[in-house]
Amino acid sequence: MEFEVLHTDKRSGARAGILKTPNGVAHTPVFMTVGTQGTVKAVPPRELKEAGVEVVLSNMYHLYLRPGADTVARAGGLARFMSWDGPTLTDSGGYQIFSMADLRKITPEGVTFKSHLDGSEHFLTPEKVMELQGKIGADIIMVLDECASYPISFDKARKSTDLTIEWARRSRSEFERLGLGPEQAVFGIVQGSTYETLRKRCVEDLIRIGFDGYAIGGLSVGEPKSAMFEMVTVSTDMLPEDSPRYLMGVGFPEDIVECVGRGVDMFDCVMPTRNARNGSLFTSRGKIVVRNAMYAEDLSPVDSECDCYTCRNFTRAYLRHLFNAGELLAANLATLHNVTFYQKMIKEMRTAIMEDRFPEWRDSFLARSQRTGHRE
Amino acid sequence: MEFEVLHTDKRSGARAGILKTPNGVAHTPVFMTVGTQGTVKAVPPRELKEAGVEVVLSNMYHLYLRPGADTVARAGGLARFMSWDGPTLTDSGGYQIFSMADLRKITPEGVTFKSHLDGSEHFLTPEKVMELQGKIGADIIMVLDECASYPISFDKARKSTDLTIEWARRSRSEFERLGLGPEQAVFGIVQGSTYETLRKRCVEDLIRIGFDGYAIGGLSVGEPKSAMFEMVTVSTDMLPEDSPRYLMGVGFPEDIVECVGRGVDMFDCVMPTRNARNGSLFTSRGKIVVRNAMYAEDLSPVDSECDCYTCRNFTRAYLRHLFNAGELLAANLATLHNVTFYQKMIKEMRTAIMEDRFPEWRDSFLARSQRTGHRE
Repeated sequence: MEFEVLHTDKRSGARAGILKTPNGVAHTPVFMTVGTQGTVKAVPPRELKEAGVEVVLSNMYHLYLRPGADTVARAGGLARFMSWDGPTLTDSGGYQIFSMADLRKITPEGVTFKSHLDGSEHFLTPEKVMELQGKIGADIIMVLDECASYPISFDKARKSTDLTIEWARRSRSEFERLGLGPEQAVFGIVQGSTYETLRKRCVEDLIRIGFDGYAIGGLSVGEPKSAMFEMVTVSTDMLPEDSPRYLMGVGFPEDIVECVGRGVDMFDCVMPTRNARNGSLFTSRGKIVVRNAMYAEDLSPVDSECDCYTCRNFTRAYLRHLFNAGELLAANLATLHNVTFYQKMIKEMRTAIMEDRFPEWRDSFLARSQRTGHRE
Repeated sequence: MEFEVLHTDKRSGARAGILKTPNGVAHTPVFMTVGTQGTVKAVPPRELKEAGVEVVLSNMYHLYLRPGADTVARAGGLARFMSWDGPTLTDSGGYQIFSMADLRKITPEGVTFKSHLDGSEHFLTPEKVMELQGKIGADIIMVLDECASYPISFDKARKSTDLTIEWARRSRSEFERLGLGPEQAVFGIVQGSTYETLRKRCVEDLIRIGFDGYAIGGLSVGEPKSAMFEMVTVSTDMLPEDSPRYLMGVGFPEDIVECVGRGVDMFDCVMPTRNARNGSLFTSRGKIVVRNAMYAEDLSPVDSECDCYTCRNFTRAYLRHLFNAGELLAANLATLHNVTFYQKMIKEMRTAIMEDRFPEWRDSFLARSQRTGHRE
């Protein structure tokens, strides 16, 4: 993997860059569309391309349980398996595993958990997670980390961060031992809850270990926005200029814009896709819940400023009907729109960075959002 | 609506023709893809075009209950509402209403039934059904008929056929009174269960009333195949040469081929779409149930002779994964394939008719089906 920062906005920390992987190129800032189980729910790959998606993010935890890492490997790896002609990234599944508080047990060696599918017991170590992601074959893979819950005491957060650092070290060694590079790149994950000292120490140690890129994890888990932004800034201030920075699981359009301004290059979130399936659609004039009765006779498109297939061809009234009637096409059309909205936003933002007008673009975007109420 | 028979196979009764409607042309024999609620489940209109679909069939009963005929009318009619650039047909909903044996009551005046959605009571007459289909605005609309259950005594079938004929008469008058033509065309429906004399009388009476086309209804409801074929032949032998003939709700690929050979021009059935959603896929080598464990590592396409998007890009192993994981994309990819299979079959058949080799094509198709077991 190669990463190059093409332009950094002097007035913020926003960067525009390019990320080259064996399966293709991504322009940063990049919003990676989530395809947890090896498919972006309800949308075929060609429509993702149409929407401007460059990277698909999948989840090792889910693919390991079903259909199994070996099955994906035999199919030629994740991208070929799902027929995605572009870069892919797999998360290690740390977040998913640690979310199941009652179903897992953590020891220094690794984590034991019960499958959410059949209750079967599994034991994953940092090493095993590298091996599995090696088989699944995404361009970028993530170390196993411990994603602490929020709130958490300093002592517990410190222990958890220590474990994350130790696991990062073991992951990196195993990545080398298995010879996964240079076909694959591995990212470390900064943890430390909302404690600045822990975040800083984690960044330092991860840099010392050395990764192809650095993710900021454990945020957007319930902490105040201000704490999230602070932890992002603390991290990006220290992270190497020439490595990509990835803020995991974020988020709202406004949060992405704010964090690009703090020097983050990569994002992912289920928001555009999951919201779409609930009929919650992003538009240039704010979010609309298209199921609502008020749209029953609304013959305008979801977003008159959007040129996606959905907006070019269908009305709010029709989408409302599809949602109300429980029709499968609803999820397809709505997801295509939301994914397009996110990609358009990120593309506009990148252009603004390249043209040295990011702060103006950001302020205008945020002012409009405040009027229209994207933020929840 | 204009209909022209371009070629009739002398050795069978198979016809190739062209059907011109205000919203576009269909080449007969035509298989109309079912979009009950104003959407072909899981497939956007552009993919239907790609699959070769020419006509979409929707259901008045469903659209009347939700979103309501007025809503569809205000959106510019069914085709515009669903963004389908081509001919549409609405069934009257007779079949749906009469299927709900416990929820409806028939009188000579009309039918009272309870909505399957909210239990609300509705009263539909042949006249009302014309008015509603006038609002919904499909190119071809169907009279309200009584679809008798099977088996049924001769006496009951006779009474039911009489009612169907009387309703056809009233429908035709109301169609005139409302001035629905020539923008819309109306088809009568031949009933009479498996009784030749009833079918014949029904055909005669419908011809006397005069319709733009004639449907054969009440078949594929449990009667033996031989009876179905016989009733089709009895009907097509008497129906006017210059009007389209539409066999409702049929069916298996083999049945369609057999009935084209008996002079039928139009078909519809939920089979390709519904089967797809269950993971049951039509292929040139027989039907496969792609959920089965035997496909877990099968890296071949669903059908190596098919060039649909699904077959060009995805493996059986991947489709199995999507179905197993309950992923929405499964329905989309599977439906696109099955719809393509039906359209390809019908197109090949039409070419064979035009080139005077329909009987050979039919025999070869049926022989292959027998080997591969399409027929259930």
